[in-house]
Amino acid sequence: MNQHPSDQASSLDAAAAELGPGGDLAPEADQDGYRRRMARRKEVQQQRVGERNLEKGLVLVFTGDGKGKTTAALGLALRTLGHGDQVAVVQFIKGGWQPGEAKALELFGEALHWHALGEGFTWETQDRDRDRQLVQQAWEQSLAYLADASRKLVVLDEVNVALKLGYLGIEEVLAGLDLRPELTHVALTGRGAPPQLLERADLVTEMKLVRHPFREQGVKAQRGIEF
Amino acid sequence: MNQHPSDQASSLDAAAAELGPGGDLAPEADQDGYRRRMARRKEVQQQRVGERNLEKGLVLVFTGDGKGKTTAALGLALRTLGHGDQVAVVQFIKGGWQPGEAKALELFGEALHWHALGEGFTWETQDRDRDRQLVQQAWEQSLAYLADASRKLVVLDEVNVALKLGYLGIEEVLAGLDLRPELTHVALTGRGAPPQLLERADLVTEMKLVRHPFREQGVKAQRGIEF
Repeated sequence: MNQHPSDQASSLDAAAAELGPGGDLAPEADQDGYRRRMARRKEVQQQRVGERNLEKGLVLVFTGDGKGKTTAALGLALRTLGHGDQVAVVQFIKGGWQPGEAKALELFGEALHWHALGEGFTWETQDRDRDRQLVQQAWEQSLAYLADASRKLVVLDEVNVALKLGYLGIEEVLAGLDLRPELTHVALTGRGAPPQLLERADLVTEMKLVRHPFREQGVKAQRGIEF
Repeated sequence: MNQHPSDQASSLDAAAAELGPGGDLAPEADQDGYRRRMARRKEVQQQRVGERNLEKGLVLVFTGDGKGKTTAALGLALRTLGHGDQVAVVQFIKGGWQPGEAKALELFGEALHWHALGEGFTWETQDRDRDRQLVQQAWEQSLAYLADASRKLVVLDEVNVALKLGYLGIEEVLAGLDLRPELTHVALTGRGAPPQLLERADLVTEMKLVRHPFREQGVKAQRGIEF
């Protein structure tokens, strides 16, 4: 039977979900029954992997008001560097201070290119024209990285905020994404990603703030956690 | 007037929200009016920072079915290493393969300790007793790291899944968190974090899967993105 690939993938997903992840969530108390279930799950798992064999450069968006958007993109940078591939990071907002990650990433030398806005933003400059000019420079740098096949991953950190403040147009960004060689991944972070970007993305994760009592406890921004 | 610290912090947050982030979101068309608004915002911002001066080791939970939980924790590890502090990572699930991050993090030498389960899980072992034993070993290693003041950050990767599968008890984990020296941060990742852990956490982010079309497109797990 010739199922449509996505139908086939969906039915494998459903089979995997029905078999479950194992452990105490599996209904069998006996080892034999458990082993049979898990052997079947392993088989389904292998088919799932076989079913998905397309390689393409992905557009990944990390948005929402929770913590972990920039750090998730940094984790991807680390993975990519670990595989010996090259990465570029353009920081659209936080360039005014020296973050821990910048120091750590120096270890990777030329494999990582890092472009940070040279100064603060909005309430630091108090000058929209100056902000717009800095964002434009960062965007031009981004375009150069996006078009460069030697960079396997391009991180546009806090670019969503630049979009939201009106310092960059969504059409410009979408056109920039189209410049990428086929296998280049790009991660765009920041609150308030516009709908057109969500629509264009291959993966969108919303970091949702569920609980943040330490703000109310008067805890300061701490080294290693927030910078 | 002696406001309760959290009231004071809340009213500063409200003032910051009212002034807005600037850019085209500010109502003033003229540069003078804009500068006044942003100067006021800068002042509020400085007060907000001054208001929060407590330092403490935080319990951070990254949960939900979206991407970015492990990568966010890795980003924190990178930041911490960048500041010259030491980190320990215990992987409760993915130890069966060699991920990109492990190779990258080798660069940090002894500043990073990494403990990964030596083999796969559930459908790989097909043996609950074996799984339970491996998780128990990983947990004992975790306890040693949690009690060690020289480790500024301990990442318990996918520990939520071990809890969910019944391989580890929530009481054990909560007791382990209490072993920490005052300034040790701990990040716990994985889907399905139990309510008692959320209650205990200083920060909970739910990674919410908003859009994931590339699964339906038959795209495989790719180097640098998923491993």
